[in-house]
Amino acid sequence: MNCLLLTQDEFDPETGRARVVGRRRKHADEILKSSPGDKLRVGLVGGQLGQAEILHLDADCLELSVELDRDPPLKLPMTLVLALPRPPVFRRLLSTIASLGVARLLVVGTARTEKSFWQSHVIEPDEIHERLILGLEQSKDSVLPEVSMHRFFEELACDVLPTHLAESRGLMAHPGATNPCPHAVNEAITLMVGPEGGFVDFEVDKLWEIGIEPVHLGERVLRVEPVIPLLIGRLFS
Amino acid sequence: MNCLLLTQDEFDPETGRARVVGRRRKHADEILKSSPGDKLRVGLVGGQLGQAEILHLDADCLELSVELDRDPPLKLPMTLVLALPRPPVFRRLLSTIASLGVARLLVVGTARTEKSFWQSHVIEPDEIHERLILGLEQSKDSVLPEVSMHRFFEELACDVLPTHLAESRGLMAHPGATNPCPHAVNEAITLMVGPEGGFVDFEVDKLWEIGIEPVHLGERVLRVEPVIPLLIGRLFS
Repeated sequence: MNCLLLTQDEFDPETGRARVVGRRRKHADEILKSSPGDKLRVGLVGGQLGQAEILHLDADCLELSVELDRDPPLKLPMTLVLALPRPPVFRRLLSTIASLGVARLLVVGTARTEKSFWQSHVIEPDEIHERLILGLEQSKDSVLPEVSMHRFFEELACDVLPTHLAESRGLMAHPGATNPCPHAVNEAITLMVGPEGGFVDFEVDKLWEIGIEPVHLGERVLRVEPVIPLLIGRLFS
Repeated sequence: MNCLLLTQDEFDPETGRARVVGRRRKHADEILKSSPGDKLRVGLVGGQLGQAEILHLDADCLELSVELDRDPPLKLPMTLVLALPRPPVFRRLLSTIASLGVARLLVVGTARTEKSFWQSHVIEPDEIHERLILGLEQSKDSVLPEVSMHRFFEELACDVLPTHLAESRGLMAHPGATNPCPHAVNEAITLMVGPEGGFVDFEVDKLWEIGIEPVHLGERVLRVEPVIPLLIGRLFS
């Protein structure tokens, strides 16, 4: 945790005081070995970043005097559309995606997405929220990416994506593509990343039809976990 | 596993036959559900790629008729110098690094590398080999990256790196750097990636002195696992 994130409930903007309990209280003890007077980097979820002084620690609670004085880093102008991967991979990816600064994540079912993945508790809103917060704490950011779930590919492609594509360039990572993924595009991107085994032909055709360009990443077949940072490193400056 | 890799021991180039046991034999059964007559993508470790037909399967062994007919993908012209991370992270990273096509990996101890990491069995040659093979099987490559361990930073910086830097551009990922990491460099790179918390000032100065340029990746603090694919996506076309 490089930055302790406070919720609106925990923070009183009038007094500048915050009371923190649970995981983050424990972390202050076990990892940071904090004591009264110590300074911590903090942020308000959905708000600014700053620093805090520890006023008081007891078994349950960490009391802070907080000063918020700077804006969080800008989000990447990126909508990531990700085929729901295996639950443990999805769990890890949520933190990574939040830490990388992705603005919006749309999770989609595809022909090759196993139906059982939609029964996993990892797609419950509280679980998603927790993993996103861990990613923001890592990267010193305070703004959650917007996340939405779209079980049915055709609904997403017909009803949801066109709005995004009106304001961004659409790309899909697709091993069979003719063109390599471009570098440093300097424009907003809607990026599609398929399931293990890739999008099926019908899906590639449909995405192409609504204006999404297939691009490849070379000859190697990579797992989705390295593919996402690799694409972000490539696309943005 | 997208490609079954055969060792020189398992493969008889005269007859084109191979006998496979152990993990890969099991994988053929459980994941691929293979039967005689099925075709598999194969490669020879350190050699070519191709396809194989299953001639015979029994409880222990998979017998193949192999045809090797094409070269593996070219390696990235990259020497990655990585501060030894926590053992479970290192384990996962070895497969990722192999799958990405890194040519050489130098693992180094730094001021902020915990000494206990060097006692872990994950740095034993057999463990490293196994994780690299998993990465190559994922990415359909057959050539292992060269891996060497350098416990002492100064020895590496003074005796080992200058040879690499004579033939490549040196970069270090460093949050304090003035310049951002460049895109699509089209030259050989020696890339330094530090430990959690980064290189200490002495190390940054030493690396600078031998010609390694610090570059940053923006305001966010990222874990080493996404940083490596992110840098590779950025640097190479």
